[in-house]
Amino acid sequence: MAAASASVLGALDPTSDRAVFRQIADQLREAIDKGRFKEGDKLPSESELVEHYGVSRMTVRNSFSVLQGEGLVVSEHGKGVFVRPRPPVRRLASDRFARRHREQGKSAFTVEAEAAGSRPEVDGLEVKEERPTQDIAARLGGPRRVLARRRRYLLDGRPVEYAVSYLPLDLARDTPIAQPNPGPGGIYARLEELGHRLDHFDEEIRARMPSPHEVRTLRLAAGVPVIHLIRTAYDTEGRAVEVCDTVMAADAYVLAYQLPAT
Amino acid sequence: MAAASASVLGALDPTSDRAVFRQIADQLREAIDKGRFKEGDKLPSESELVEHYGVSRMTVRNSFSVLQGEGLVVSEHGKGVFVRPRPPVRRLASDRFARRHREQGKSAFTVEAEAAGSRPEVDGLEVKEERPTQDIAARLGGPRRVLARRRRYLLDGRPVEYAVSYLPLDLARDTPIAQPNPGPGGIYARLEELGHRLDHFDEEIRARMPSPHEVRTLRLAAGVPVIHLIRTAYDTEGRAVEVCDTVMAADAYVLAYQLPAT
Repeated sequence: MAAASASVLGALDPTSDRAVFRQIADQLREAIDKGRFKEGDKLPSESELVEHYGVSRMTVRNSFSVLQGEGLVVSEHGKGVFVRPRPPVRRLASDRFARRHREQGKSAFTVEAEAAGSRPEVDGLEVKEERPTQDIAARLGGPRRVLARRRRYLLDGRPVEYAVSYLPLDLARDTPIAQPNPGPGGIYARLEELGHRLDHFDEEIRARMPSPHEVRTLRLAAGVPVIHLIRTAYDTEGRAVEVCDTVMAADAYVLAYQLPAT
Repeated sequence: MAAASASVLGALDPTSDRAVFRQIADQLREAIDKGRFKEGDKLPSESELVEHYGVSRMTVRNSFSVLQGEGLVVSEHGKGVFVRPRPPVRRLASDRFARRHREQGKSAFTVEAEAAGSRPEVDGLEVKEERPTQDIAARLGGPRRVLARRRRYLLDGRPVEYAVSYLPLDLARDTPIAQPNPGPGGIYARLEELGHRLDHFDEEIRARMPSPHEVRTLRLAAGVPVIHLIRTAYDTEGRAVEVCDTVMAADAYVLAYQLPAT
């Protein structure tokens, strides 16, 4: 990747009310937005910007930290500040849990990854019986014990999502769902074989900044939020048979939905 | 609101590899998560934390700035650092564009606001004819000119969303849709009266940090991302009749959707 030159940047406006470090951040942001500095490019160094603008090193550092907070640049220790490369984005289609995908023996994650030409991977799998939190219990209709399946999803080696599925224990105990590998089509296929024909899924979406634990698990750059998605699966009798609590790297996903007009 | 006391905080771990300012941030975060420091509470002051931990003022400031970046606290100039009050969250239901709401003469925004017991308001309305961006044109099937309706939504006086609706000009020109107030039920009701019976809406969701302009428009606290939602309305003939490009304060919304299992 190229090193971007300070020569494309303008001058400061001495009559402006806007703080100098913000003016510099504005100019760098504009150069990124307009494509003059491209993904992966090294920004002009601290010294170059100190000279170009006639400001202190601290002022330049403050400008960098504004852009880092916005997720536009990443700082690599000892190497400089770079325009953050945008990873390929996965589009989750509104039919991603359709039965025809399960019948092909594929999980939703695999279906999406293959559609995007990526290599799907799952690690950190942990399956155990536990007491649910109040919120999870309420969503599942009040079971005292649940089976929890935790795992991390990666695409082309990059962690993109951390998910925990909760199922009422009376439903999942001693079934393939309690096995590390629940078999082709995943737990939704197994639920249907156990007689819980799925009717629909409710999804709730929030976005927020990650906790330090989520930053580590998903290897998030500064200024990258997470999408927090809670999905509840209902069978045709109206019973909530699974809740999946998922945290996704927001820069790796577009979620698609269809809403009825009637 | 109360001032939180440093006495609930623990000691630093001198054997830990974790930087001291991060250890302090961890302890403050835990106190917030566990409810020992409550929404709106003033955190212990810089001086109190300097004394409690035996560290420099700069170290304490770095801890505060970690928590600010995570959206957990807000700094009020000259007053101190406070646990960020969480505004009431609006849940957007998956049937929010159902015809029965339009037939009652209400917009989706009004329906949702009333359900939450809030006072809805719209300001900054601007209606004009313009050339669409490539992306908007592609979503609308390639019109050369569009009608753009820009507006900001507020709940109880707080800005929560900035939205722009684009409609093919041939469809909207010289209709009530081009009027500042399109009448009861909003533009979707008018589209149906003009013969474009709505079939469904596609929504695409992304989350990211806001631009400085969005921070000002939505008066966002530090560490609060935005949800970027692009909705396309289709009529029963499969024509895209409107694209709505919306930026929402992520701390003010939960979006709900239903996905089919078949």
